[in-house]
Amino acid sequence: MAVDLSPIDEGLLAEIANIHGMPKGAFNIRKDGQLVERHSSANIEIATKTDNPGIDIRIKAGTKGETVYIPVIVTQSGLKDVVYNTFYIEDDCDVTIIAGCGIHNESHQASEHDGIHTFYCGKNSHVKYVEKHYGEGAGTGERILNPVTNVVMEENASCEMELTQLRGVSSTVRDTNAELGAGAKLVLTEKLLTHDDQVATSNMKVELKGDDSSVQVISRSVAQDNSKQIFNPLVIGEAQCRGHVQCDAIIMGKAKVTAIPGIEAASEDALLVHEAAIGKIAGDQITKLMTLGLTEEEAEQEILEDFLN
Amino acid sequence: MAVDLSPIDEGLLAEIANIHGMPKGAFNIRKDGQLVERHSSANIEIATKTDNPGIDIRIKAGTKGETVYIPVIVTQSGLKDVVYNTFYIEDDCDVTIIAGCGIHNESHQASEHDGIHTFYCGKNSHVKYVEKHYGEGAGTGERILNPVTNVVMEENASCEMELTQLRGVSSTVRDTNAELGAGAKLVLTEKLLTHDDQVATSNMKVELKGDDSSVQVISRSVAQDNSKQIFNPLVIGEAQCRGHVQCDAIIMGKAKVTAIPGIEAASEDALLVHEAAIGKIAGDQITKLMTLGLTEEEAEQEILEDFLN
Repeated sequence: MAVDLSPIDEGLLAEIANIHGMPKGAFNIRKDGQLVERHSSANIEIATKTDNPGIDIRIKAGTKGETVYIPVIVTQSGLKDVVYNTFYIEDDCDVTIIAGCGIHNESHQASEHDGIHTFYCGKNSHVKYVEKHYGEGAGTGERILNPVTNVVMEENASCEMELTQLRGVSSTVRDTNAELGAGAKLVLTEKLLTHDDQVATSNMKVELKGDDSSVQVISRSVAQDNSKQIFNPLVIGEAQCRGHVQCDAIIMGKAKVTAIPGIEAASEDALLVHEAAIGKIAGDQITKLMTLGLTEEEAEQEILEDFLN
Repeated sequence: MAVDLSPIDEGLLAEIANIHGMPKGAFNIRKDGQLVERHSSANIEIATKTDNPGIDIRIKAGTKGETVYIPVIVTQSGLKDVVYNTFYIEDDCDVTIIAGCGIHNESHQASEHDGIHTFYCGKNSHVKYVEKHYGEGAGTGERILNPVTNVVMEENASCEMELTQLRGVSSTVRDTNAELGAGAKLVLTEKLLTHDDQVATSNMKVELKGDDSSVQVISRSVAQDNSKQIFNPLVIGEAQCRGHVQCDAIIMGKAKVTAIPGIEAASEDALLVHEAAIGKIAGDQITKLMTLGLTEEEAEQEILEDFLN
């Protein structure tokens, strides 16, 4: 690992990207708005953008089995870091992309990271994208993360996206947009945990534009204490397509959750379904685990971990 | 039946309120913004409002097994009829209320009826409310119906509301609001059919304010031709309560349906669920009916009638 990473930095990288030591293959590590270290591979080229802050990641046609890491960490208080990362994934690839942002804030000033990620997925390419957000530190300053994720999928492309907000993010507005061409398939899983006075808003817009395209949106969230969450996923079917949206939320304490999933059928051949449920942990689930020897708190924790994982 | 009702009027009344001849018990028949005939009963008093156009309907405590009819018909083109009907249903009643509006329009001018209905349901009272909207006539003038339905339910009151839009309504914006006290139970069923270039918007807001209150919202709709429908039901749980929203839509031709059902849990003890599905009639359902000797059109009609009834 590069010399200028502290134990706090390394802890953040382990939490958000499961990085211990130097990753293999292509990676780009950003800290406090600056490049820490970058590595391109034979098939994956990472270059600094010439217009905006951020990077272009070009993945050659036919690249299979490779992983790219692009984690971001913020430890400087009062910083608002905005970065644009654009992925050009050519045809017939099968790659994994690991992103994420960790904020450590010991101050009363806010720290903010806004990552705008855009993915162009070529024909027949499969992309797995994993993104984790995490905040820590004893400061009263807010830890703010406002990610934008844009996905454009060509014919028969497939994407699995796992977007997770772990503990410690004071405030987030999440915008996710996708356009699917013919035969494209997207599975979008979002998991959010909020606690204390945190607020989270998640907006999603998925447009099914090509015949035989399909999307599955799975949203799972836990709102604890006084936290507030709002979900606005919208799936629009403009072709012979299938869309399924499922939002499940567990509410605890004085938390508040609003789920407003929209489906819009603009084609007679669109089949769109959504489901949502908000409630507390069922009492009998807790009782069952307590009969196995767990305390009430342990049982609750076990159920929440199962639900989010 | 009163002398000034034509065969067209009688046809409209039969369509919207199933009235043939004079109803029994309490009723108020309104035509083109004017009272046609009114009858109060020993337990149900209908009086003209002193502030706004419309009527106050007072139902004495303990009234059981009675029905009130308050249909409205519009046959005059260019008329915009706004009417306020307020129901004061005292405790321990069990009554049925039949409302509805039929518009016959032979002109190029629009005809509009906006009925604002408010229901105060006393403790332990059970109310069944049936409302049908219908338009007809060869004119190009729009047939517009913008109903507002407000329901305030006291302890252990229960309401079944069936709101139906039959054929022929060019444009509608429907607003339905309900507040439920402890132990109150509301079942709200809305059925909409749109065709040609019709547009329909349905907004609902149900607030579950008391412990053990519950609501079930059932929305069924068919959108044919170039028609457009938008659904915005919102259920807010503020106590130990249960809410269930179910929207099912059949889309045909070039129609467009958007369903955005919201649930908002503001109490840890609220359990809220919603489901929505939009799609076309399943091909195998049509095939099955065709093997029984129906034509494709007859099979389709049969399935739609089953779905809406």
